[in-house]
Amino acid sequence: MLSTMQDVPLTVSRILRHGSTIHGASHITTWTGDGAPQRRTFAETGARAGQLAHALRDELGVSGDDRVATLMWNNAEHVEAYLAVPSMGAVLHTLNLRLPVEQLVWIVNHAADRVVVVNGSLLPLLAPLLPSLTTVEHVIVSGPGDRSLLDGCRARVHDYEELIADRPADYDWPDIDERAAAALCYTSGTTGEPKGVAYSHRSVFLHSMHVNSAEAFAQTPGDLALPVVPMFHVNAWGLPHAAFMSGTSMLMPDRFLQPAPLAEMIASERPTLAGAVPTIWQGLLAELEANPRDISSLRTVVVGGSACPPSLMHTFEDRHGVRVVHAWGMTETSPLGSIAHPPAGVTGEEEWAYRATQGRFPASVEARLAGPGGGFLPWDGRSAGELEVRGPWIAGAYYGGASGEPFRPEDKFSPDGWLRTGDVGTISPDGYLTLTDRAKDVIKSGGEWISSVELENVLMGHPEVAEAAVVAVPDEKWGERPLATVVLTEGATADYETLRSYLGEHVAHWQLPERWAVIEAVPKTSVGKFDKKVLRKQYADGQLDVTRL
Amino acid sequence: MLSTMQDVPLTVSRILRHGSTIHGASHITTWTGDGAPQRRTFAETGARAGQLAHALRDELGVSGDDRVATLMWNNAEHVEAYLAVPSMGAVLHTLNLRLPVEQLVWIVNHAADRVVVVNGSLLPLLAPLLPSLTTVEHVIVSGPGDRSLLDGCRARVHDYEELIADRPADYDWPDIDERAAAALCYTSGTTGEPKGVAYSHRSVFLHSMHVNSAEAFAQTPGDLALPVVPMFHVNAWGLPHAAFMSGTSMLMPDRFLQPAPLAEMIASERPTLAGAVPTIWQGLLAELEANPRDISSLRTVVVGGSACPPSLMHTFEDRHGVRVVHAWGMTETSPLGSIAHPPAGVTGEEEWAYRATQGRFPASVEARLAGPGGGFLPWDGRSAGELEVRGPWIAGAYYGGASGEPFRPEDKFSPDGWLRTGDVGTISPDGYLTLTDRAKDVIKSGGEWISSVELENVLMGHPEVAEAAVVAVPDEKWGERPLATVVLTEGATADYETLRSYLGEHVAHWQLPERWAVIEAVPKTSVGKFDKKVLRKQYADGQLDVTRL
Repeated sequence: MLSTMQDVPLTVSRILRHGSTIHGASHITTWTGDGAPQRRTFAETGARAGQLAHALRDELGVSGDDRVATLMWNNAEHVEAYLAVPSMGAVLHTLNLRLPVEQLVWIVNHAADRVVVVNGSLLPLLAPLLPSLTTVEHVIVSGPGDRSLLDGCRARVHDYEELIADRPADYDWPDIDERAAAALCYTSGTTGEPKGVAYSHRSVFLHSMHVNSAEAFAQTPGDLALPVVPMFHVNAWGLPHAAFMSGTSMLMPDRFLQPAPLAEMIASERPTLAGAVPTIWQGLLAELEANPRDISSLRTVVVGGSACPPSLMHTFEDRHGVRVVHAWGMTETSPLGSIAHPPAGVTGEEEWAYRATQGRFPASVEARLAGPGGGFLPWDGRSAGELEVRGPWIAGAYYGGASGEPFRPEDKFSPDGWLRTGDVGTISPDGYLTLTDRAKDVIKSGGEWISSVELENVLMGHPEVAEAAVVAVPDEKWGERPLATVVLTEGATADYETLRSYLGEHVAHWQLPERWAVIEAVPKTSVGKFDKKVLRKQYADGQLDVTRL
Repeated sequence: MLSTMQDVPLTVSRILRHGSTIHGASHITTWTGDGAPQRRTFAETGARAGQLAHALRDELGVSGDDRVATLMWNNAEHVEAYLAVPSMGAVLHTLNLRLPVEQLVWIVNHAADRVVVVNGSLLPLLAPLLPSLTTVEHVIVSGPGDRSLLDGCRARVHDYEELIADRPADYDWPDIDERAAAALCYTSGTTGEPKGVAYSHRSVFLHSMHVNSAEAFAQTPGDLALPVVPMFHVNAWGLPHAAFMSGTSMLMPDRFLQPAPLAEMIASERPTLAGAVPTIWQGLLAELEANPRDISSLRTVVVGGSACPPSLMHTFEDRHGVRVVHAWGMTETSPLGSIAHPPAGVTGEEEWAYRATQGRFPASVEARLAGPGGGFLPWDGRSAGELEVRGPWIAGAYYGGASGEPFRPEDKFSPDGWLRTGDVGTISPDGYLTLTDRAKDVIKSGGEWISSVELENVLMGHPEVAEAAVVAVPDEKWGERPLATVVLTEGATADYETLRSYLGEHVAHWQLPERWAVIEAVPKTSVGKFDKKVLRKQYADGQLDVTRL
């Protein structure tokens, strides 16, 4: 029996219309670095989004599901593109300006982007790539920058403001299937080629509703949100769409992401909510140590992207009265997967223990732990498995490119369609996720999983261990066993037996490595993470001096 | 271009699974009146919902889209039915126990309910109707009551607890099309036959997400919600579904809706959030006046169903520290249409003025004002039109019954599918709705609308007017004009000219009635509202002594 409810699609245009009318007085403030921030109301933003859509369609011929890319900082014009491009039926493709240039080129060509909207300050990045971007017909430049860098390029070049000026603000936004793609974002591709996730209008809408729920970020018209996390990182965690939905004003840092201007904009504009990776907040705390400023307007700071050191959370709260909230997610999860609000009523150390987890899942995200043996594990807070998730804002495939079909790599999607997150962890009986390792780094030993990260953390707690990296190596009997590689401190006297005993005080006996090697330094990736691929190769090639206990 | 997101339906079973696992420790407390409230966790509730579904399918043969009706108070077993029946694919039909019995019979037969779950205390209501309920095969009795009243009835009679005992708690909830009907609720049918609204899984899920948003009720696991509004009134305004989604514990009043037990349960269980019609709160305030109790645990009291007198809001806030929030909705809107949180930053009288409106619409609800002339009116805070709404939790048709097709009466749905609410009002530039009249009572005079309620309110402000009712009467020149009928106070000396002059001080000249009649009393409906149908008929039949000025 069908319901009698209206069949109304959940679309970005609905968010656009709502925000620019009901919440027309809310505003976007973009930092300019010159003491005079740019301010624009949601009503103006909606009107300019209409003008942008007219320009794209009427002047540039954007139609159907054409991809319109952005290479932009967090600013008002980027929000205009966020709203206009999907609402007119096209697909917004946010480009990560920190990617290696060859990946950027690959991604733009893979998506067959027809238009790139670029901040003038990023022309030095874009201009040299343009000859390789075979599908790009139009470049729209917004904000100050050296436009002469584009002289002689094949694409037509437009000035953003000139392009949209004098066009109608009203655009008859089409009715769009809510399952159509609204936005495209590629994972960074540290292993293999970058993979594109095409968010739907439906997923953006539902995710925005969740961001605004009391159990997530609880954005209201009384808030001022500061998305430090870039708008090319999973839609700035969904904050801009959600803010336009709830009438939450936004403070946009543009390219001023250094600790000093961040501290200045927080002190002067007084945001109530902010989101960024831990590194940003570490830098801000150091800056505030040197140049104290009042950041107490922030009620909540959301930290994601990687685990947040507890010391950082404590410092924020004790020194500045700012509550840090831990969240977990990834490009494939829109990104909000879980958020670490403690259960009602817990206090003190227990509360902090809950807040250090990756948190609980919302009703829209189902979770399960795939065990080493193939089945699914209980939520007992001890059994560690690979986290798999399912839900309306979770990816079920990757974008196959302009001429390809969506594809579902076996290591990324289960046969029944759940996303394999590649994260290994436990879930407590009350639903709190604690991640312990990446699936590719976990040691699969005789049907049990050993967390490399846990062994490393314990080892690095030893006073004579400067660094420790644990990797899986093949073992005839157990399949895999851990190899512990350690960097000792200057003048250290500890031998392998001592370190193994020390480790044995903290982890189960069967988890203790038999293979040990002292190394000079742990090989690292370009972003400073342990590069375990290199270690595994060094071991395979016999380049490590391994002692077997 | 299709997105790459998972195609996962928004269903009630998702809410059920989520609440009973992640929030398994949250609880439902049902008032019993004997000092020992019944307590049940969400985990237990989920298990019992599974048992109920097994009983319905395996023992009673419920299948497909069979309708399972409830004639119940607000209690834990009613929540179990709320979750189990839609999750198994059947349709929950909540019966309004305050309807005239002939309407109840009509509704049950129209929906072809196969099963009725009834509270024992309501058997005196149900038993005499059973012979007329031609489709009901099973009656399931929950809680204390005189079961002998069912002796000799045609339907099979079951005891709720015996029926579900020893059945498996795990039920393999089927994947359901999110557009399928989940729950059925009939409007009261004050004009014409009752009309059924069939909520979809999708609409229930989306509405629940909205209820939990910070801009609506902001329910969290730290809250204890008290739905005084009956679960047969538009799903208790969606509070139970939303609470199970957010892990919000519930306090259920069962049949103890009188002021004294309400005050007692609030003082002892300390809910943080409650929802009810103004009458309930009026009674509670009077009770607290006589027998003071501490109700300050309530952070928010949501009032809907009819406009809330400002004095009630002030008393709650000043005397008890409880914030009253105004909301607007109807059976056809799930019901949350708008909610009156003031804009950020306003205070004092301005804040109170905003809080007295019907509030703002969420992103999921689009609104427009249909003017008397046929077009749509600006949001200028002055132009009054009939409110029309559109959105994924707004009805687009009425249920046609077990053997009929959905139907769309012209006076209820616009040609392009929007719901005609029958409410007349204005919308301010910042999106606040103020209702002024019902469309059927408004006077359509020469292409403009005159609010009968506004004229009545002004007239009743005159010291010599006890009551005033204004109705539309046919007019050759203007189409319709207002007829003012007044009940004068004892010994009043005011004549029509005086009253008309008084009225002219407050409303535009063209709105002033030419036709006046003094009457003994305003005819009233069974629930005490002005019965304008009777007045219009009396006028048409020449029964009123009308003076024309």
